[in-house]
Amino acid sequence: MNTFETAHMDRDDRPVEECGVIGVSSPAGEQTAQLAFFGLFALQHRGQEAAGIAVSDGHRARMHKDTGLVTHVFDAASLAPLAGYHAIGHTRYSTIGASSAQNAQPFLLETMHGTLALAHNGSLINAAELREELLQRGFGLTATSDTEVMALMLAAASGKSWEDRLERTMPSWKGAYSLVLLGVDSVVAVRDPWGYRPLSVGRLVEGGYVIASETCALQTLGCVEISEIAPGEIVTIRGDEITRRRTPPAVTGGAHCSFEFVYFSRPDSEWDGRSVHAVRQRLGERLAIEAGVDADVVIPVPDSSIPAAIGYSRQSGIAFNDGLIKNRYIGRTFIEPSQSLRERRVAMKFNALAENLVGKRVIVIDDSLVRGTTAGPLVKLIKDAGATEVHLRITSPPVMHPCFMGVDMGTYDELIAARLSIDELCRHVGCDSLEFLSVEGMLAAIGSQNGYCTACFTGEYAIDTTALRLSARKAGVIS
Amino acid sequence: MNTFETAHMDRDDRPVEECGVIGVSSPAGEQTAQLAFFGLFALQHRGQEAAGIAVSDGHRARMHKDTGLVTHVFDAASLAPLAGYHAIGHTRYSTIGASSAQNAQPFLLETMHGTLALAHNGSLINAAELREELLQRGFGLTATSDTEVMALMLAAASGKSWEDRLERTMPSWKGAYSLVLLGVDSVVAVRDPWGYRPLSVGRLVEGGYVIASETCALQTLGCVEISEIAPGEIVTIRGDEITRRRTPPAVTGGAHCSFEFVYFSRPDSEWDGRSVHAVRQRLGERLAIEAGVDADVVIPVPDSSIPAAIGYSRQSGIAFNDGLIKNRYIGRTFIEPSQSLRERRVAMKFNALAENLVGKRVIVIDDSLVRGTTAGPLVKLIKDAGATEVHLRITSPPVMHPCFMGVDMGTYDELIAARLSIDELCRHVGCDSLEFLSVEGMLAAIGSQNGYCTACFTGEYAIDTTALRLSARKAGVIS
Amino acid sequence: MNTFETAHMDRDDRPVEECGVIGVSSPAGEQTAQLAFFGLFALQHRGQEAAGIAVSDGHRARMHKDTGLVTHVFDAASLAPLAGYHAIGHTRYSTIGASSAQNAQPFLLETMHGTLALAHNGSLINAAELREELLQRGFGLTATSDTEVMALMLAAASGKSWEDRLERTMPSWKGAYSLVLLGVDSVVAVRDPWGYRPLSVGRLVEGGYVIASETCALQTLGCVEISEIAPGEIVTIRGDEITRRRTPPAVTGGAHCSFEFVYFSRPDSEWDGRSVHAVRQRLGERLAIEAGVDADVVIPVPDSSIPAAIGYSRQSGIAFNDGLIKNRYIGRTFIEPSQSLRERRVAMKFNALAENLVGKRVIVIDDSLVRGTTAGPLVKLIKDAGATEVHLRITSPPVMHPCFMGVDMGTYDELIAARLSIDELCRHVGCDSLEFLSVEGMLAAIGSQNGYCTACFTGEYAIDTTALRLSARKAGVIS
Amino acid sequence: MNTFETAHMDRDDRPVEECGVIGVSSPAGEQTAQLAFFGLFALQHRGQEAAGIAVSDGHRARMHKDTGLVTHVFDAASLAPLAGYHAIGHTRYSTIGASSAQNAQPFLLETMHGTLALAHNGSLINAAELREELLQRGFGLTATSDTEVMALMLAAASGKSWEDRLERTMPSWKGAYSLVLLGVDSVVAVRDPWGYRPLSVGRLVEGGYVIASETCALQTLGCVEISEIAPGEIVTIRGDEITRRRTPPAVTGGAHCSFEFVYFSRPDSEWDGRSVHAVRQRLGERLAIEAGVDADVVIPVPDSSIPAAIGYSRQSGIAFNDGLIKNRYIGRTFIEPSQSLRERRVAMKFNALAENLVGKRVIVIDDSLVRGTTAGPLVKLIKDAGATEVHLRITSPPVMHPCFMGVDMGTYDELIAARLSIDELCRHVGCDSLEFLSVEGMLAAIGSQNGYCTACFTGEYAIDTTALRLSARKAGVIS
Repeated sequence: MNTFETAHMDRDDRPVEECGVIGVSSPAGEQTAQLAFFGLFALQHRGQEAAGIAVSDGHRARMHKDTGLVTHVFDAASLAPLAGYHAIGHTRYSTIGASSAQNAQPFLLETMHGTLALAHNGSLINAAELREELLQRGFGLTATSDTEVMALMLAAASGKSWEDRLERTMPSWKGAYSLVLLGVDSVVAVRDPWGYRPLSVGRLVEGGYVIASETCALQTLGCVEISEIAPGEIVTIRGDEITRRRTPPAVTGGAHCSFEFVYFSRPDSEWDGRSVHAVRQRLGERLAIEAGVDADVVIPVPDSSIPAAIGYSRQSGIAFNDGLIKNRYIGRTFIEPSQSLRERRVAMKFNALAENLVGKRVIVIDDSLVRGTTAGPLVKLIKDAGATEVHLRITSPPVMHPCFMGVDMGTYDELIAARLSIDELCRHVGCDSLEFLSVEGMLAAIGSQNGYCTACFTGEYAIDTTALRLSARKAGVIS
Repeated sequence: MNTFETAHMDRDDRPVEECGVIGVSSPAGEQTAQLAFFGLFALQHRGQEAAGIAVSDGHRARMHKDTGLVTHVFDAASLAPLAGYHAIGHTRYSTIGASSAQNAQPFLLETMHGTLALAHNGSLINAAELREELLQRGFGLTATSDTEVMALMLAAASGKSWEDRLERTMPSWKGAYSLVLLGVDSVVAVRDPWGYRPLSVGRLVEGGYVIASETCALQTLGCVEISEIAPGEIVTIRGDEITRRRTPPAVTGGAHCSFEFVYFSRPDSEWDGRSVHAVRQRLGERLAIEAGVDADVVIPVPDSSIPAAIGYSRQSGIAFNDGLIKNRYIGRTFIEPSQSLRERRVAMKFNALAENLVGKRVIVIDDSLVRGTTAGPLVKLIKDAGATEVHLRITSPPVMHPCFMGVDMGTYDELIAARLSIDELCRHVGCDSLEFLSVEGMLAAIGSQNGYCTACFTGEYAIDTTALRLSARKAGVIS
Repeated sequence: MNTFETAHMDRDDRPVEECGVIGVSSPAGEQTAQLAFFGLFALQHRGQEAAGIAVSDGHRARMHKDTGLVTHVFDAASLAPLAGYHAIGHTRYSTIGASSAQNAQPFLLETMHGTLALAHNGSLINAAELREELLQRGFGLTATSDTEVMALMLAAASGKSWEDRLERTMPSWKGAYSLVLLGVDSVVAVRDPWGYRPLSVGRLVEGGYVIASETCALQTLGCVEISEIAPGEIVTIRGDEITRRRTPPAVTGGAHCSFEFVYFSRPDSEWDGRSVHAVRQRLGERLAIEAGVDADVVIPVPDSSIPAAIGYSRQSGIAFNDGLIKNRYIGRTFIEPSQSLRERRVAMKFNALAENLVGKRVIVIDDSLVRGTTAGPLVKLIKDAGATEVHLRITSPPVMHPCFMGVDMGTYDELIAARLSIDELCRHVGCDSLEFLSVEGMLAAIGSQNGYCTACFTGEYAIDTTALRLSARKAGVIS
Repeated sequence: MNTFETAHMDRDDRPVEECGVIGVSSPAGEQTAQLAFFGLFALQHRGQEAAGIAVSDGHRARMHKDTGLVTHVFDAASLAPLAGYHAIGHTRYSTIGASSAQNAQPFLLETMHGTLALAHNGSLINAAELREELLQRGFGLTATSDTEVMALMLAAASGKSWEDRLERTMPSWKGAYSLVLLGVDSVVAVRDPWGYRPLSVGRLVEGGYVIASETCALQTLGCVEISEIAPGEIVTIRGDEITRRRTPPAVTGGAHCSFEFVYFSRPDSEWDGRSVHAVRQRLGERLAIEAGVDADVVIPVPDSSIPAAIGYSRQSGIAFNDGLIKNRYIGRTFIEPSQSLRERRVAMKFNALAENLVGKRVIVIDDSLVRGTTAGPLVKLIKDAGATEVHLRITSPPVMHPCFMGVDMGTYDELIAARLSIDELCRHVGCDSLEFLSVEGMLAAIGSQNGYCTACFTGEYAIDTTALRLSARKAGVIS
């Protein structure tokens, strides 16, 4: 079956991250693909649509990719032929309007410099332009992904090594890209000069190196000496060797995606020297300072807001407790619920714990409010369970602008905070009070007022997006 | 592919529950199978091995069942033919030594009384005996499940209705059974006279009734007037009608499974008039009273021990925090990890949050310790992350006896608390101290010293299991 | 996916045979299931709907069965677990109104006499009656097949061996059954006392015995000492042992199905001491004698009528040639052709060879004319290709009565020869002349005027079918 | 499952054809993809490995392709999205050493001239060279097929239309290619200037045109005004319009593949003004003249040699009859037979008809003898059935040279006639006499001594293959 449908109940009101990447080089070789598999498994939260692994044994490359979860795409039979010393892997979320199967990564290509496979997390804002240039030069393109554009540009680039060709090509690429590249006898990784998306490297105790979108994957594989790849840095791993080449960052301090801390990354990852979990607790603490309210209990929207709710509780002195239970098996379903069930969609996912809510003034902690589709039903669920007041607190600022660097935030029309004032929004959602964390508060919790992209909150993009916004306006994406 | 293998990383050190059941009768009919589907979806935690639904339209019954998760077994195409007013459904865990597909439920049978479908949660301790009796009477059996034995006995029973035939047959059934039965024009449910497993009924606002293993499924479907089915009670639902017939309970107060509160049930279910979540918080509170220790932080083993850890923290005044992060996508994988990865098996599932553990004396709350296979690696993970002391606290007593009522606890040889003293166990696990909740403490947290089966802790079975233990001894299950 | 649809283009105007059976017993054991697989493969023409194999290793039985062709149902993975010394297998055509998967054979049952698996080819005319008796005795039935009825009767029968129990039960069974039975340590086969369907046994050179519906399967497996199982005979094979027990035949000479010679059997099979291919050539020869006509060329409807067309040509002296080419890959398709293509349905399957037809008077040889749906389009195809005259000759008599012994001939309403005179039929089909072989001619070609069932041509059934015809009349099958 | 294995029994001793192509343009549009599907269905004999269809609705192109038979790759669900006015399709045989899925056709590409899809039958002898040129120009290639090379060259070509770009590019292409090209609003087809592979066009009565590898597909779809596309001719179809542009042929009369008449084409196709079936009968007649022998019966190796055997019989006056029966269900099987069965491999596919062979001197007609792997077992089968003499007659000359134009004949080492004299071959096969048709005789039967490629028999290639043979020698393909 190649057809996948996402039933509505599976769509949270969350921004959608694009991808996770992994790169492995091991002098032993016999477990390279397996390490890539378990690494992707630890990055599954970054994309559930498709997965793939490409491997090189020093002579030829082999690849397996398909739509589905990592554990569905790979089994012993599909993993067995992937023998080699070097591997890259990818797990991805869907892209609008494009066939999943066709755009699954890695993207494997024969070039004059030998076989090349590419996988990346991010999005180029000038992809359409680069694509058009390639077409005009007589190239043909088989897919609609940025990855193919990047691969073809590298294939045509001059330079003695993939590192050289990357360095020459990178100035043309505007946008976010944490990229892993499989050559015949090495894995090369690079993070865009803005450093939008995370990318780290670690050493395997038994020999070799691993590169991954998040440190949680490196820890899962037992890596030591874990360090971040810097904005603009090119890192090559080849068995027990590692080579790091710095290229100038695009902006001082970088433009790291602040939403990685708010929602995307696994809480057990570290980024920019900071534990994601610790940042989330501080986001809750800041929120308690900025947006306190007299109440009886603080409850999280599970699972992502648990650390922030603990932080809010700790700071405010108001008791933390569970108030909502999530069905752990929520996932894709092909069954479209009938009308009466559709109205209870949130109930498929969450149940209220009446005994912790009844007669209480409840503070609900959530990490973001994007399209505003689930907040209302959740508030209703909590009130129906007996809460006398519901105060919704969001651990990020209102999302008022689209992301052009690979996160599906929705269009201006879809972003509810771009259309309604906070008061209107509060009435729309039906809560007794609604407050968002300030941009400054969020950055304070992260630990730095600089080096982070806050464009979805502020509209201040680190790259000039005028051309893109113009074409988006034409296409009706923004108004 | 019909073959499923459970990779080791998927096996927690937990007792394994057998099944969840659902029954629906709706005067409208057009959404009966869909209600059953969404109900099973809410009971998915009770069994991930196979699922099935049988439906009757008043004339004939149709069924679809297969191995896999509820969302895999059913899609729009497989659900569409299941048109009818009455439905039963089942989700199951594996049974040792038996083909999953063959034993998937419901079990559908043509009888002299019309079509009959059966699904149940539990296990008869005299199944082998009853089976032998049927064979001697000339019956043939197609499967190895208790369900077929029960269905054949009902098919051959005399009586004017399924309710009558149930009442006449029930005295022969020794053990746990929360059973739903689909007749041509009704759904009949019965709970064994000991009341081992939960079973409740609720009314659909739009008309009709639903019966489910747990109240969380009834809430998900929007039921009102939810009540428990009593031990020995037979409940019939037929569109907007409900009939309840009491039969005498086997023991005063019943022998409800205490492990439902400790681990099996979803925390948002209610049973015996008690919220599972609230009981779990009280288990944590009791444990703090019985087994306090000076420490810096209380952390749960996620997700099941979160409520108890909150309770322990609240009672002890020691701060609650996250210390372990669980990979939400852990599930079946067909990849057998190589040696070096196998040693890191616990790391595939859990990562430690160093910043919450380093330099700290840590109390770890877990709900049970059965075979003792994961406690050691977990303690090591926490110590490796920098904890100075690890105090393991278990919210249930030591499991020292097998369950003969349908829970796969393991054999005496496998039950580590049956082989080691608590001191030895503490050294085996590598923690600084280890304490279990007492049986009395557990029952106090539940709220009653009577009416609960505690056989796996005490060896005191509510039904005479001598014959069974004898044959188990012969078979080497117990020594 | 469990759903199969037969697109129209796949339905020939042919009677539909029910099944093929195989039984293997080998002292070596390691290749028993594989022999069963390759035997079923040689019997694939007898049923393409489902296939299954059950194997016993002397202790326990294992089975695998599913819908689809033999080569789809079995691969190395599904065959590997079927280890044992004794095996039975089955390939089947669909039964009207019944789920394929549920009724797939073998039927495996635990009984007081040990494990029993059954597979058969044929149909009991008193199945409904026997079924009702079982229900009244309190049995439950899981499927709608005769096989389950037979299995349950054997399970409940007394006697020291399966052979004894068969002998005691057979008098209750009215109808056609070539049956293979798998016990714990042997394979037992029996042919009904009328001998409706073929069944033969042969010795494996490397040790052991094989039983099969047709001798072509025995030859494929390299068997020697091939002999037919007599009507009413019970044959047991157990490694290198064979035991044959005669029970009295129902009618002198038997009531062998004449359609096996006309169409069902593979031409390389032998039955009743006669080569099927040779009989088919003689059917063509007789037809030339009975129904000669002046013409230029004799062409077969491929592939089944090639031998008869050669015979007709040889006898008449009119040249044989190909006139129609068949698409060898015709099989199931799930695509329903649009209107304009539907009208060209016969063209999907056959193309005319204009150079052999243009300006010629053509004799077309076909083996049967049942519902009359394809003869017209075929004649048109040949005329459109330039034939000046088309004379249709059928190597069997007009089919005017349904078969109650397991062949789906269609109802009286569907049988075109039961509704139209031969003249009307000739005009309906659009040919210049139409003639059928006489019953006497057919039997002469077979080689005996006795011992054959010709009920579908004559209405003279060897078993009293009054009751059956009565209920069929009520159900509207016959009028 | 992406992995296919061909079990040995599935490998005939036949040359392997590469592909069939179809192109459809219909002003109505609603049945375009369906026509392509049924057309491919009629071309299934040209390739069973993979199938695909690409469709354009005038704006965008959509494609579905996968490994497997046409009827497996397409069902209603996969065909439904392929809406459009213009379609191309492809069915293919495997290529050595290449992943089937990756090389499945059509090949779809975005280009500066708009979307382009390509499918072709044949092989370029200078593909490696052209590929290297593309790589040196900086192109990346995703597959190993000629088709991608051709598509990328067209994408980069200048010219106002695909027809222009084809005309400019064709001089670079050395080899066989019957190609269909899907543009945004038309289908363009071209046959290489040597005319190696067949390609024809016909008009749909209900409007539009169809292009197909063989006329049998055009007839199946009800086409009229069927004509061959000339060597070097470019034909464009766009709804009810057809445009034909001649380019100069490479050699006078062309270099049509003579093996299309001998074996590849369906007998109901016409090519070069000749019926394939009629040519095959004449091949048999010529063989009777050139290689007569006193015998009792002429038998074909079914199915491909039936027409030639009829021709041989007619010419020689020796009676034609069936002597071998073929299992119609022979196809892929994933079961590797054990040793004792492997020895009987030919028996899985063929059974001898003893009654037509016993005591007889038998002439066996086969169409080709390439690797010589099945002739021996076949002769043994016939002798074991009782034939006193077996005279093997082949309706083509000995195959002594590889084909470089897309037919997998095998290497020099594999071609048995390149290694053994006919006498040695006769002894090797075990027949009483063995004769091949002469090249002249074959061409006489075809009807022309000119215009045909006979390189596999004579080593005289119409294109200079020196470079290719050199590299093949290095690679060990030829010696």
